[in-house]
Amino acid sequence: MQRARAQVDEALDRFLPTAAVCPGVVNEAMRYSVFAGGKRLRPILTLAAADAAAAPHGHGSRDAGRIDALRLALPAACAIELIHTYSLIHDDLPAMDNDSLRRGRPTLHTIYGDGIAILAGDGLHAEAFTLLAREPQPAGDDPTLAARKLRVIQAIAEAAGPGGMVGGQVIDLQAAGQVPGSLLTLDRDGLRQMHSRKTGALLRASAVCGAIMSNAPAELVDAVDRYASDLGLAFQIVDDVLDVEGTSEQLGKTTGKDAAAAKPTYPSLYGLEASRALAMEYADRARRVLADAGLMSSHLPGILQWVVSRRS
Amino acid sequence: MQRARAQVDEALDRFLPTAAVCPGVVNEAMRYSVFAGGKRLRPILTLAAADAAAAPHGHGSRDAGRIDALRLALPAACAIELIHTYSLIHDDLPAMDNDSLRRGRPTLHTIYGDGIAILAGDGLHAEAFTLLAREPQPAGDDPTLAARKLRVIQAIAEAAGPGGMVGGQVIDLQAAGQVPGSLLTLDRDGLRQMHSRKTGALLRASAVCGAIMSNAPAELVDAVDRYASDLGLAFQIVDDVLDVEGTSEQLGKTTGKDAAAAKPTYPSLYGLEASRALAMEYADRARRVLADAGLMSSHLPGILQWVVSRRS
Repeated sequence: MQRARAQVDEALDRFLPTAAVCPGVVNEAMRYSVFAGGKRLRPILTLAAADAAAAPHGHGSRDAGRIDALRLALPAACAIELIHTYSLIHDDLPAMDNDSLRRGRPTLHTIYGDGIAILAGDGLHAEAFTLLAREPQPAGDDPTLAARKLRVIQAIAEAAGPGGMVGGQVIDLQAAGQVPGSLLTLDRDGLRQMHSRKTGALLRASAVCGAIMSNAPAELVDAVDRYASDLGLAFQIVDDVLDVEGTSEQLGKTTGKDAAAAKPTYPSLYGLEASRALAMEYADRARRVLADAGLMSSHLPGILQWVVSRRS
Repeated sequence: MQRARAQVDEALDRFLPTAAVCPGVVNEAMRYSVFAGGKRLRPILTLAAADAAAAPHGHGSRDAGRIDALRLALPAACAIELIHTYSLIHDDLPAMDNDSLRRGRPTLHTIYGDGIAILAGDGLHAEAFTLLAREPQPAGDDPTLAARKLRVIQAIAEAAGPGGMVGGQVIDLQAAGQVPGSLLTLDRDGLRQMHSRKTGALLRASAVCGAIMSNAPAELVDAVDRYASDLGLAFQIVDDVLDVEGTSEQLGKTTGKDAAAAKPTYPSLYGLEASRALAMEYADRARRVLADAGLMSSHLPGILQWVVSRRS
């Protein structure tokens, strides 16, 4: 994971526009948030899924196939991280979660103001699609590359849009009573549905797009999709538990905010103990999906393990 | 133009997601802004450029080529209108231009709050790329369709991003003194550059993408690009002049705001008379581009005429 993170960071720096192309302040602002020490879970998932799909199915030698998988999947991995970063910038705004601390640093709007924060988010959102349309460029004969890139663009845009991430954040605002005239009370099922949209959709797209770029067969794409769906729910439950148990110092963000905002969470609806058990249940299910698909020797089980055992 | 506008409105309604797919409130909010009586200049440009490129170059009969051009270009036309709409929603926010009236109706955030307005904008932004990746689907054998769609996605994303529209809005905020520590004073050249980004980039992409979808040769793509660039500057100058001369009732938006905000405009830097003359100069130049490219019998000169003679 360390190596994948370094590859992603290097590629993000290379793929992002420079101050030669866009006004300095928005360039600075975008880079401030992109290089704020994120975990890079989504791009790591993309690269791991691409690698897992390439290992048995790659052309030529196993190693050559895996190196090519990395090259093919890096743009999608980075584009998803740009979208994730834009969503954090917008979520932190006073009009939404009003958070001043993220990954141990002041949030973007506290430094540049709300206007530039909105625009830096919009800029990253657009840059993700510039990158997806442009890269990877064909190396040699690859007759289905353009079609695969279009599938990836559609998967990411749908995951990011009102049917996915944006829709989840809307439900979150409604549940927090922040939308005039449309307060939502979430039960357990509603909570799961909110998270399936808010974080699950983009996590699923992360894994799916890696597999697509490696030309995986439909069953393998479907397997990493189901794996990522369960991993996403486990991830969210752990997040909610850490928000109760962790300190701001450990997590680099304001803790105890959910309770303060009276937001529904896994601990508030299930209790801490049952929440931990539920996270394990989702993780077990994800592991079974990997086992059935013959993916236990890939990096995907390790990522799952990291997700459920992380302390920050 | 009336007919093209109706075709765009019908297609937008068909292409937008429904409440079955996304939370009701964001669906409502997106549609409120998309169907707020916009001029549809950008999609009309796309369709006109596609038609102009198809007329001499279409396969089979002239009419069949033109009908196919409409089918191929409608998704790009609508996607650009979705992006334009999202940008208006975000620009109207209190953190930016703080406008409460748009096209004669209350702006989105005054109804749903800033949070939902930001998210509705983000949702439309993502939907644009879902649409561009998904549509048009191939009808018969069209071996370059996927590659053309990718070119269109890249052109639109670049035009919308920090090198284009977002960058222009950043400069606009800096010129209005709204970015802490980075006040910009725009001279005539700086004003032109701001508008080239803020509205020019997406107008150029509108025309260019229509031509690309009709498989136009490079010289024709280049011609409609230069035409749209000059049309965009003429459009902006007329906008600035109307902001001084028009009434809120005519324009459906708050007038005199530029002067009140001490924003640099064409009238403030050139005077009203010279601004009008400059708009005519850009329009003449655009017309010469069309004449040289053999496009005077297309709808493109009529759109130019509308842009410079409009009263609202």
